[in-house]
Amino acid sequence: MKPTGIFPPLTTPFAPDGSLALDRLRDNVAKYNRTGLAGYVLNGSTGESVLLSWAEVERVWAVAREAASPEKILIAGTGAESTAETIEQTNRAAKLGYRAALVRTPSYFKPQMTAEILAEHFLRVADAARIPILLYSVPVYTGVAMEAPLVARLAQHPNIIGIKESSGNVQRISEVIAAAPPGFQTVVGGAATLYPSLVMGAAGGILALACALPDLCVELYDAVQAGAHERARAVQQQLLAPASILASKYGVAGLKYALDRLGYYGGPPRRPLLPADESARREIDAVLATVAAAAAS
Amino acid sequence: MKPTGIFPPLTTPFAPDGSLALDRLRDNVAKYNRTGLAGYVLNGSTGESVLLSWAEVERVWAVAREAASPEKILIAGTGAESTAETIEQTNRAAKLGYRAALVRTPSYFKPQMTAEILAEHFLRVADAARIPILLYSVPVYTGVAMEAPLVARLAQHPNIIGIKESSGNVQRISEVIAAAPPGFQTVVGGAATLYPSLVMGAAGGILALACALPDLCVELYDAVQAGAHERARAVQQQLLAPASILASKYGVAGLKYALDRLGYYGGPPRRPLLPADESARREIDAVLATVAAAAAS
Amino acid sequence: MKPTGIFPPLTTPFAPDGSLALDRLRDNVAKYNRTGLAGYVLNGSTGESVLLSWAEVERVWAVAREAASPEKILIAGTGAESTAETIEQTNRAAKLGYRAALVRTPSYFKPQMTAEILAEHFLRVADAARIPILLYSVPVYTGVAMEAPLVARLAQHPNIIGIKESSGNVQRISEVIAAAPPGFQTVVGGAATLYPSLVMGAAGGILALACALPDLCVELYDAVQAGAHERARAVQQQLLAPASILASKYGVAGLKYALDRLGYYGGPPRRPLLPADESARREIDAVLATVAAAAAS
Amino acid sequence: MKPTGIFPPLTTPFAPDGSLALDRLRDNVAKYNRTGLAGYVLNGSTGESVLLSWAEVERVWAVAREAASPEKILIAGTGAESTAETIEQTNRAAKLGYRAALVRTPSYFKPQMTAEILAEHFLRVADAARIPILLYSVPVYTGVAMEAPLVARLAQHPNIIGIKESSGNVQRISEVIAAAPPGFQTVVGGAATLYPSLVMGAAGGILALACALPDLCVELYDAVQAGAHERARAVQQQLLAPASILASKYGVAGLKYALDRLGYYGGPPRRPLLPADESARREIDAVLATVAAAAAS
Repeated sequence: MKPTGIFPPLTTPFAPDGSLALDRLRDNVAKYNRTGLAGYVLNGSTGESVLLSWAEVERVWAVAREAASPEKILIAGTGAESTAETIEQTNRAAKLGYRAALVRTPSYFKPQMTAEILAEHFLRVADAARIPILLYSVPVYTGVAMEAPLVARLAQHPNIIGIKESSGNVQRISEVIAAAPPGFQTVVGGAATLYPSLVMGAAGGILALACALPDLCVELYDAVQAGAHERARAVQQQLLAPASILASKYGVAGLKYALDRLGYYGGPPRRPLLPADESARREIDAVLATVAAAAAS
Repeated sequence: MKPTGIFPPLTTPFAPDGSLALDRLRDNVAKYNRTGLAGYVLNGSTGESVLLSWAEVERVWAVAREAASPEKILIAGTGAESTAETIEQTNRAAKLGYRAALVRTPSYFKPQMTAEILAEHFLRVADAARIPILLYSVPVYTGVAMEAPLVARLAQHPNIIGIKESSGNVQRISEVIAAAPPGFQTVVGGAATLYPSLVMGAAGGILALACALPDLCVELYDAVQAGAHERARAVQQQLLAPASILASKYGVAGLKYALDRLGYYGGPPRRPLLPADESARREIDAVLATVAAAAAS
Repeated sequence: MKPTGIFPPLTTPFAPDGSLALDRLRDNVAKYNRTGLAGYVLNGSTGESVLLSWAEVERVWAVAREAASPEKILIAGTGAESTAETIEQTNRAAKLGYRAALVRTPSYFKPQMTAEILAEHFLRVADAARIPILLYSVPVYTGVAMEAPLVARLAQHPNIIGIKESSGNVQRISEVIAAAPPGFQTVVGGAATLYPSLVMGAAGGILALACALPDLCVELYDAVQAGAHERARAVQQQLLAPASILASKYGVAGLKYALDRLGYYGGPPRRPLLPADESARREIDAVLATVAAAAAS
Repeated sequence: MKPTGIFPPLTTPFAPDGSLALDRLRDNVAKYNRTGLAGYVLNGSTGESVLLSWAEVERVWAVAREAASPEKILIAGTGAESTAETIEQTNRAAKLGYRAALVRTPSYFKPQMTAEILAEHFLRVADAARIPILLYSVPVYTGVAMEAPLVARLAQHPNIIGIKESSGNVQRISEVIAAAPPGFQTVVGGAATLYPSLVMGAAGGILALACALPDLCVELYDAVQAGAHERARAVQQQLLAPASILASKYGVAGLKYALDRLGYYGGPPRRPLLPADESARREIDAVLATVAAAAAS
């Protein structure tokens, strides 16, 4: 199991009443199956994982499993605050056929999330998990960052195969890659730094933006593989504004609105998140128009 | 329902295997019943709420309900990331006889937690809840702070009766008190700023430190009520180090160790939290010895 | 030399062309001489010290020395990034008759400003200075905060007599007071937390807001001395909005505009600072109107 | 004047008594003249500019001017807090033959350093300066960051030719490059992100680390120009630890110690900075040994 290439952390479609819209998920996956995406992450941050019950998550996992083409690698977001709960959900995902688990740092008790406590947590999870573990460091949401020495230590565990590094900090991702053993897969978590991360040795990207613009993200990845650096830089420049506006500034709500505009089902986020408002929609429309114009030229 | 006076957010006792130790909770509550505490918060941050399943939380609520003296006011921590889940748990607590719900800000999607989104969340919860709501702002854990204008707006809702303000920022708590209508109860969330908050008009404190040192916390509150400012300042100075060491620096693990030393049941925290290590225990012992010496003199 | 009571860090008047307007300074001081202010700080942050040459500072010091009533205590801001330069300026102020020097933390090389480096700096300055030293911790401008153990260590030096603590953090100021020896003078640097700091044992305040509203600041100080806590709280509540709007939100430019409205000379700040714009002026006018209305009632 | 290639911001040599050691500066420059460095920055942050008087700075500028080979481009650090003072020093550097001025953001009054105030400052300086201006954004020291829209606006001025972007944030540097007009020179301010910044279109680097390891920095730059990406990545990986340890963690003191070890004159920093202590020296020695071993293999 090598998470190379581009993966979207899929959004979770909701009906207007807030309930799961699993048919819409099935339709989205069918469309993504026709792209060059390497696989899918189900129940990541972008999937509004913290707004779902675990019973709902299981239904999402099951439907995506059915809908995904066999060549697509399936990764399940299974991180919880509690170590025991994380293990339980990881093994549930394993049973449903998921190939790896993406486990974010616990984070509620931020001042206590020392390297020691994080190490113990991830090592316990890795020991007990029936599928390989990808670490997940996403300080924008958790307020907790994993530094290179901790990652290098955890990378020694045979069942910890990589990290999704979503700090947006290219120096840190470079340090992680330099510190970890060769087989370890460092995957970048944001499209705005995809190309710089790839040149430093990242194995790929798990990118919210890849839900909306899978082809451009894959094109950048392929360009780097082919040594086409001019093309890679040009695509990266094109991705800067969409990454910043759709995926960061307006969060899941912005991304879902963009999906609706691009032929996927986006739909509303779940409360307390609110749909993109008028001004957000205008800004997103403008960004999408620029991307479309660049594609046409 | 007026949350005046001192409330501890009770710790959740676990057995060494990590399971709930409800008898220990019963014993602790029996001891707290003999103090001047105004009531108890069950399933707050200090209760390791994020490490419990809701099924476990219900058992904790039920046991504490039975064990508490009738004059003690019971408050339930019911905040979740999702608005719907928060409402559901709030009404479950109501059914179990809890008098108010303490609802922390949703926080995972920090950049999206605008005043607008937080307002919508709390107003929906307040509309649907069968018991009064206390807002809960605790940026050290959530990375999200509620500012005075937002609190003042929410304080207009008849079912939002107060706020637990745990930012540690006395200017902000002063601004909240100044902006909110007279009946609104602003309760401070940290013992290190209890006296300065009370002189600015805080109605009381919900204090982790009150689990360990209930009598001193109550003494400070009573001194302020009696206008005994010299005494209040002296007690506040005594509480500075314990507040900083037990409750902040070493978190729940440090507090639980102190409880064990003070005749309550502390026990281990739940993983990923780890028990206080040797050096933490030494520092906590030293602080407790200072408190005991001051009491003896 | 005891910096008890209320001191304004005086603004530096400039003519419209940016040159020093020393007559205006003289006029302002003459007005302040008729208040209950304990003395004046010349060349503090609010005096735009970083925008003056040392030659200009000396002229400011000389004029204020002449203009001040003999009973007013004069304190000179003498901090520079370099230790040697700080010593030189401190002794220049001494020669001009200043009673104490306010020395801010060096701060440009923030990551290197360890407790060790700060201690060496202040001890050298205190050894060489011919007048007593007040430490000055103002993280909002410097990004460097002095914690209680460092202050307590420096307070042992016979020539370090106090600290202006401008972090706005009441817990920290309480810890500083608790850690320092009894004679050490801890003075709060912000009007928004004056009352809570005084009840915890602060000796007074060096307050930008006291340039604009000297009488109210002195009234609050006197009320605390007299044990009139209800009055103190009421005045503190009145000062919250002016402290936040005039002195923090709009900085020196806002304060200077307020001075112009209140019968002092404010005038323009020096570039790169720009005068308060239309919307700032409107907000400041509204705050001043509220203060005036409260005074009238 | 195009600041392409690699520039070191030269350290300022001091004698043990803290006075300028200009002969040592001459010797260092003579050595640097034999490298592939594109030029030198005199009186940047690494030159301890905030610890020098302007009279001293002029002597530094004059000596470096004499000592530098004619093909080396000379850039003077001329930023001060005051707009007028910045202009004055910039034109003094011009008179001494400097080709461009590096002007850092004013920063003492951080909350007031809005885009508007920074724009006015830089435009005034650019209007009045007799040499071209390089903007300088270095939030680690100033607490103020220039964002892409502000830079793009300033880049329209004919006398503002580029920016030294020292935030370490590759996304931001990419956004600056994408937003600025084609001729604008964006130069990265940290060796840890040199390669990722160059692939995104940076024109070069002004790197503290280039004082100690000029050849490796130039090699990386040349590799990217030649399209030798494997080599560039390998050199970048080699530079990660030195950049982090010498230039960031231990600041100027660490860099000066490394210079002493590498055949340049480092000497002591000026107080309040203190020489690297025993443990810093050991860590720096270890890093330099690793670099030497890599060079030998």
